[in-house]
Amino acid sequence: MSETSKPTFTVIGAGMIGVLYGAQLQYAGYDVTYLFHHHANEVAKSGIEVDFDSGNVVLPDVKVTSKHQDLTPTDVVLVSLRTSDNYLLSQLLPPALKKDSIVVMLQNGMGNEEDARRLLGSDSHDWSDVRICRGLPFVLAEQLGPGHIKHDQFGQVTFGVPGVKAPDWLTGVVDCFQRAKIPTAVTDNLQLTIWEKLALNVPANGLPVLFHASIGEIASDPAMTSQWLDLMKEVQKIAVADGYDLADDFISGMYEKSKGMPFYPSMMRHYDAKKSMELNSIYDRPLQIAKEKGISVPATELLSGVLEMLDARNTGKVPPKS
Amino acid sequence: MSETSKPTFTVIGAGMIGVLYGAQLQYAGYDVTYLFHHHANEVAKSGIEVDFDSGNVVLPDVKVTSKHQDLTPTDVVLVSLRTSDNYLLSQLLPPALKKDSIVVMLQNGMGNEEDARRLLGSDSHDWSDVRICRGLPFVLAEQLGPGHIKHDQFGQVTFGVPGVKAPDWLTGVVDCFQRAKIPTAVTDNLQLTIWEKLALNVPANGLPVLFHASIGEIASDPAMTSQWLDLMKEVQKIAVADGYDLADDFISGMYEKSKGMPFYPSMMRHYDAKKSMELNSIYDRPLQIAKEKGISVPATELLSGVLEMLDARNTGKVPPKS
Repeated sequence: MSETSKPTFTVIGAGMIGVLYGAQLQYAGYDVTYLFHHHANEVAKSGIEVDFDSGNVVLPDVKVTSKHQDLTPTDVVLVSLRTSDNYLLSQLLPPALKKDSIVVMLQNGMGNEEDARRLLGSDSHDWSDVRICRGLPFVLAEQLGPGHIKHDQFGQVTFGVPGVKAPDWLTGVVDCFQRAKIPTAVTDNLQLTIWEKLALNVPANGLPVLFHASIGEIASDPAMTSQWLDLMKEVQKIAVADGYDLADDFISGMYEKSKGMPFYPSMMRHYDAKKSMELNSIYDRPLQIAKEKGISVPATELLSGVLEMLDARNTGKVPPKS
Repeated sequence: MSETSKPTFTVIGAGMIGVLYGAQLQYAGYDVTYLFHHHANEVAKSGIEVDFDSGNVVLPDVKVTSKHQDLTPTDVVLVSLRTSDNYLLSQLLPPALKKDSIVVMLQNGMGNEEDARRLLGSDSHDWSDVRICRGLPFVLAEQLGPGHIKHDQFGQVTFGVPGVKAPDWLTGVVDCFQRAKIPTAVTDNLQLTIWEKLALNVPANGLPVLFHASIGEIASDPAMTSQWLDLMKEVQKIAVADGYDLADDFISGMYEKSKGMPFYPSMMRHYDAKKSMELNSIYDRPLQIAKEKGISVPATELLSGVLEMLDARNTGKVPPKS
């Protein structure tokens, strides 16, 4: 990453999260290129807009493409694909990379950095100097149209690298986010932060898919309150067995907060839009660790299986029989 | 129950099960009165028809009412309400009863005889001589229209009384069913038979509600096979703690059979028809016993909670927010 000039950015997978943060960086003066899956032409014409309570970020001129082959190397690459599409990274990442780029996995869930490292490893280039970190977003927003996002609540991005203390090179990226007025945090224990977020995500992402109800409605419904807490406690059990001290206080506090969240999670929005859900990073990997550690988590297993079967039918991988 | 003449029958809750068995008894020459919730007038005009592969049972003349006040006492009362409606029995049963009537709970699930006994206890009459038994049906059928049922598969009714060996008085009822060519069995251990059926019903009734898929499709879907078996094993754990030896062989054998069942369960049909589901007898009571015995069954708890919340929203007890 260049020390002498402003870092340049690529957003890979310009959905709600990618546009939200990419636009704030561009608005702060950084050069940002967006890789859209759909609607690249429309967005190139209409620009990008993000609605905040404090006013709108309007960007009439944006660098947009739908062809990853047209990307050029930048200092920072923000990956905001749905994690179920991370397998595409072996093709999408290389055109945007130079030897010392920083890749920020701007995603939820577990194992995403390992995905990116493994998929880069399948390229014939030597990408071993590329640095990969997490930018764990805690934000609620909605997509009003192509390139048009409405910010609802929160917004903090927590930066870290799995398995190690936050390295010095993170500072360069974090500085950019801060200059763009994006709330940031840096953690020396990314894995614990990921487990904490998963304890919320396991009930809060999957259950709304079943009910088309908000996080708060379900967490506070008498039929589901103990089940919601039990799912959180199962995640806690896996985390503790994995060596991360997810405290009882954290679980009970986050549970109380959940009851007051009148929001729909991204997983429900993906499901409703007939898109695949981020089951790999939110459910499969924690469950894989549970299996390896010999931890029994039947409620999480059941929810995960239900979601997997619903996902297959919803996305047409299995045609419904009736 | 009269020894000298043919026993007379009332069917309380003439839905699919009640019409199916009531019609076979009437066809064999027994006097049967049907209490319909809806469509009593239509059925009085059009009669009752049950389609079997071997030919149809056609009954142009049927004794039908929609007013329980109009019922008269009969020797046998078949209760085929959905168990979620059993609370109505305090009103529906007494007009059909005489001192020595036999009540056959022609239903799935647990605790139904206790329901009936308790609800009769709230009447000012002394009904203590009324005998209450189970007729546990194992049948697949569908309702083609009011008073018109299509028999699909199976049909056996297993008779027994909770907590005791099959008493002699059961013979009179069982004889009638046999004369009507209904396959019967009699058990000295009704509670074990109920647990066996519950081990199937807990996954096979509830999960199709989530997927609108058949029992076999779900039991054999790679995403759900281990979860299906785990739900059965949780029921087994409760049964064993309750003193009923639900064998591993039974569980694994029934699981294998489930994979080959291309049928939709009654609970899914009730849900699709926006009717309340039989959650009380299939889920609540086994879970209550698990709680009393200190048995942890998180997957069953989760499924039960999900169904309860879906039931409330589906039947309008809680209006959906979106």
